[in-house]
Amino acid sequence: MTDDRLVALAERLSRTCLERGLTVATAESCTGGLIAHAITEVAGSSAYFRGGFVTYADDVKRDHLGVAQELLDAHGAVSAQVARAMAEGARGRLGADLAVAVTGIAGPGGGSAEKPVGLTYVGVADDAGVDVRRHLWPGDRTANKQASAVAALELMLERLGGGE
Amino acid sequence: MTDDRLVALAERLSRTCLERGLTVATAESCTGGLIAHAITEVAGSSAYFRGGFVTYADDVKRDHLGVAQELLDAHGAVSAQVARAMAEGARGRLGADLAVAVTGIAGPGGGSAEKPVGLTYVGVADDAGVDVRRHLWPGDRTANKQASAVAALELMLERLGGGE
Repeated sequence: MTDDRLVALAERLSRTCLERGLTVATAESCTGGLIAHAITEVAGSSAYFRGGFVTYADDVKRDHLGVAQELLDAHGAVSAQVARAMAEGARGRLGADLAVAVTGIAGPGGGSAEKPVGLTYVGVADDAGVDVRRHLWPGDRTANKQASAVAALELMLERLGGGE
Repeated sequence: MTDDRLVALAERLSRTCLERGLTVATAESCTGGLIAHAITEVAGSSAYFRGGFVTYADDVKRDHLGVAQELLDAHGAVSAQVARAMAEGARGRLGADLAVAVTGIAGPGGGSAEKPVGLTYVGVADDAGVDVRRHLWPGDRTANKQASAVAALELMLERLGGGE
């Protein structure tokens, strides 16, 4: 279920990181490890991929990424604020130049009127700061995970200036 | 690239965990997040999946899973001893009833006469102790990741007594 598009993006990320001597890390909630899986499909990724956290439970986001409990309480795990904190936490704790974070509602359960299934925040952090984007995916659980992983890799490449 | 077999195993894991009220966690090196991705393909997995670590760099294994530097120095990252320590570390740090860990050489690089490409250790830890298995996969990088993820989910099910 990692499609060719994800691997193609991971290969572009590989070229960019190797050319520029940069390292990356991941913090995944709703994508559940898919971004790290795509990155590590590329041979030699150990040269620039530091590692990642899959933080499904809120207390794991707090204890292992350093997301403040106050943020989780005030905004919920699926929020721009938590995506930002996850990206910053992963970058600092994994010692990477750039980290990406994803938090969202993959479905089919867990949605509400305010936060429907498919709502997803993707964030990247580097030494210049953090950028967070909001998405609302229309698919099922598998499709939403894929779309979020694609968006995460694209945002990393955009931030790195890693276009073709 | 998550095949039907992985998802079928993840669905069996889901039924077993829900029936018995157990939680699980992952610590992945060579599988790079694929086990967590498979587990989270199942709707409702947030009820029993605490989260996971993708520890590609050795210092990430040490700092975030508590694998002793002495073990890494004495046996190397791809060893039964490190698989055991990764499983125990993930179980304790993520507060799960059962944790699985995988460390291996997915290839195509990184192999040696003593530790060839495809060599993989899979470990599970629960309150009764740790079990580690050694595998030598014959495939390419993608196939070796898949085989390791299948072996990890099968070992979790075996440990849980979660047969059909």
